[in-house]
Amino acid sequence: MLTVNVEFVNPFLVSAVNVIKTMANTEVKPGKPFVKSDRISKGDVTGIVGLRGVQAKGSMAITFTGPAILHIYSQMLGENAEEISDAVVDCVGEITNMICGGAKAILSEKGYKFELAIPSMIAGKNHMVFHKTNGKIICIPFDTIAGSFFLEICFEE
Amino acid sequence: MLTVNVEFVNPFLVSAVNVIKTMANTEVKPGKPFVKSDRISKGDVTGIVGLRGVQAKGSMAITFTGPAILHIYSQMLGENAEEISDAVVDCVGEITNMICGGAKAILSEKGYKFELAIPSMIAGKNHMVFHKTNGKIICIPFDTIAGSFFLEICFEE
Repeated sequence: MLTVNVEFVNPFLVSAVNVIKTMANTEVKPGKPFVKSDRISKGDVTGIVGLRGVQAKGSMAITFTGPAILHIYSQMLGENAEEISDAVVDCVGEITNMICGGAKAILSEKGYKFELAIPSMIAGKNHMVFHKTNGKIICIPFDTIAGSFFLEICFEE
Repeated sequence: MLTVNVEFVNPFLVSAVNVIKTMANTEVKPGKPFVKSDRISKGDVTGIVGLRGVQAKGSMAITFTGPAILHIYSQMLGENAEEISDAVVDCVGEITNMICGGAKAILSEKGYKFELAIPSMIAGKNHMVFHKTNGKIICIPFDTIAGSFFLEICFEE
């Protein structure tokens, strides 16, 4: 189970680094993935998308701290945002779509076919994200020059 | 597009009333569904699930105010909760699963087949939920004796 999960997780890690680097011209340093047993990662804005495949179903969430997403937004759009506006929330949806799309392509090459639902975004200071799953929840922390963000992935087989 | 959307929306409305009535022995009064153009519905705890079918893909979110979910929780579990604990968040996940499962069964009879992803839950005072979609976002407000909750459904064809 854990092996398969790792196989599912790496494509998201790779895709997240690619997307932020390419779209926002921002270096991203992934930290060590860990199995999430508490609810420690809190973000100011989150994108969530459901994934459904033949072999497994799951969900991915990406949670940004305010400073991290405001930096990424200004890099991507070429304009500053002072707060998490509708435009910033929309940008989080785009990023969520792009990361999942990239991961889906990598997973497809490995023989895992997934279909994506549409992303939902959540804004609000210090909200917490939980996944209802029998599988393990893998959390990957990422650092940027402006702050951190977290990717959470869980799959049920 | 709107017709199809209504056809997709009613099964969720029916299922939500059934689930809360049956599982929590609580009368639910659905309000008039409306197309959501602002971000007015704020909840204290939310369940989100992605849906993917041949004809359409979408997502459903159910957002509860604190008093509403604490009442529903105590009715379902037979024990009181003073705050939105992990157990309450888990209960929101169960409710999300049950409502989607019920709606899926009704939609299946109409010839629309959907697969569900796993639910994610969000907790945090006054968080806001957004959906990234080209389709309309339909919001249904519900009233209970203890407070209100909101169902948001959107589909892209």
